[in-house]
Amino acid sequence: MDPIRIDDPQDPRVSAYLDIRERDLAGRQGRFVAEGKVVLDVLLSTGRFKAESVLVLENRLAGLGEILRKAPVDLPVYVTAGEIMDRIAGFHMHRGILAIGRKATVQPAEALLGALSARALIVVLVGIANHDNIGSVFRNAAAFGADAVFLDATCCDPLYRKAIRVSVGAALKVPFASFADTVGFIAALDRQGFDQFALSPRGQAEIRDAKRAERLALYLGTEGEGLPESLLARLRTIRIDMAEGFDSLNVAAASAIALHHFSTSKR
Amino acid sequence: MDPIRIDDPQDPRVSAYLDIRERDLAGRQGRFVAEGKVVLDVLLSTGRFKAESVLVLENRLAGLGEILRKAPVDLPVYVTAGEIMDRIAGFHMHRGILAIGRKATVQPAEALLGALSARALIVVLVGIANHDNIGSVFRNAAAFGADAVFLDATCCDPLYRKAIRVSVGAALKVPFASFADTVGFIAALDRQGFDQFALSPRGQAEIRDAKRAERLALYLGTEGEGLPESLLARLRTIRIDMAEGFDSLNVAAASAIALHHFSTSKR
Repeated sequence: MDPIRIDDPQDPRVSAYLDIRERDLAGRQGRFVAEGKVVLDVLLSTGRFKAESVLVLENRLAGLGEILRKAPVDLPVYVTAGEIMDRIAGFHMHRGILAIGRKATVQPAEALLGALSARALIVVLVGIANHDNIGSVFRNAAAFGADAVFLDATCCDPLYRKAIRVSVGAALKVPFASFADTVGFIAALDRQGFDQFALSPRGQAEIRDAKRAERLALYLGTEGEGLPESLLARLRTIRIDMAEGFDSLNVAAASAIALHHFSTSKR
Repeated sequence: MDPIRIDDPQDPRVSAYLDIRERDLAGRQGRFVAEGKVVLDVLLSTGRFKAESVLVLENRLAGLGEILRKAPVDLPVYVTAGEIMDRIAGFHMHRGILAIGRKATVQPAEALLGALSARALIVVLVGIANHDNIGSVFRNAAAFGADAVFLDATCCDPLYRKAIRVSVGAALKVPFASFADTVGFIAALDRQGFDQFALSPRGQAEIRDAKRAERLALYLGTEGEGLPESLLARLRTIRIDMAEGFDSLNVAAASAIALHHFSTSKR
């Protein structure tokens, strides 16, 4: 592809990049923003989502050669100067690499469940409303080879700009789907032969004693409230032992410990 | 103590709370800011640092009764209305609970080392310059009962406002000290009988195969660069196995996995 030079911040070809932060709040009509070299690489490598265009600083273009070769030949690559980019984005874009992607049609949880292998590790998130946390959990899910992430209706969007950035692109890589009815979802996983563990500070077993089943679902809740009692009552509960007097762990840290355990432990 | 009413944002008794964000950058002459109920509780419970005063929204005071009873009787507790608090702080303080603490004289690393027990787990940070990461590592250190954190000269200040907040107060609880000469510090730990493990993506052993010694030091480096080769060459190296194609873990997540492993594993 030949890079297309942009000299006017109002050029309609880069309108999707206008006022990035304001648009974070207002929404993007089915699009998302990917920032930085690593995230762009994931977007173009995995092909899970269609990239609509790329906008880069002129002095960053040379460093992107190998990554951009993974893109479809008709992907528009816009190049601009720092001052123009800042005026487009509405703030100082020191990373200098942006892309617009198109969200896929949200697939029903049942469809994603049906596509999983006989051996599968999945993460189920309930009430995670913080974009840092959701991004970090996706990053850990990718790092430890989780096959999918399922989100209840009260979780925030993994394709929010900050969530994608914090996930280092994992939100564009690990398949995810939402479910509306938690009780129904638990029953569906049960029918599919999943062992279902809920992580809770008051869990029955310490995680190092929890064995990995071929198909395993790990439930994580919010930091303050944790998973609802009604849900804990239906699942096997596991805890992460901590020091007395400071038993407080961020959900991202908890996910890292649990996913590392289940990704390396044997049945 | 009787709460002291503040009605004027310029009242000299609350001058330490003025323009919080600007002061983050300019420095506080040996003071730090603690935010929120949990952090205030840690500050007053542990007593590692002297609290100089507390400033709370009038509608939050009743909920702090039990925590404030842990404070010295002469600790000034200032109470104010939301609008005044926002004008003091310079931005909207939705938490409504602030305290000023006084940094202790920085203790030399040797003194802190000398005070450790025969069984000790310590964290050694090299080049961690991000306040989120340093706060998260302290939080995990506290959660898994690490006895101390040691920082090289390129790490950022654990008593920076955001680091304390992210640590949920752990930066006010876990003893820490800085060292200037890394090679000399490694030699000192060696003389003190510490096993020394460096976490690195290219580590020789997977962490689950690393045994906990009575005295153990865990080295963590920055996310991008990792620990310097000169340091890795002097230490035993361990890795956290990850999925192929996405071997990327945040230093806070890595610290959670490693500290959980060493805090629960047997020799």
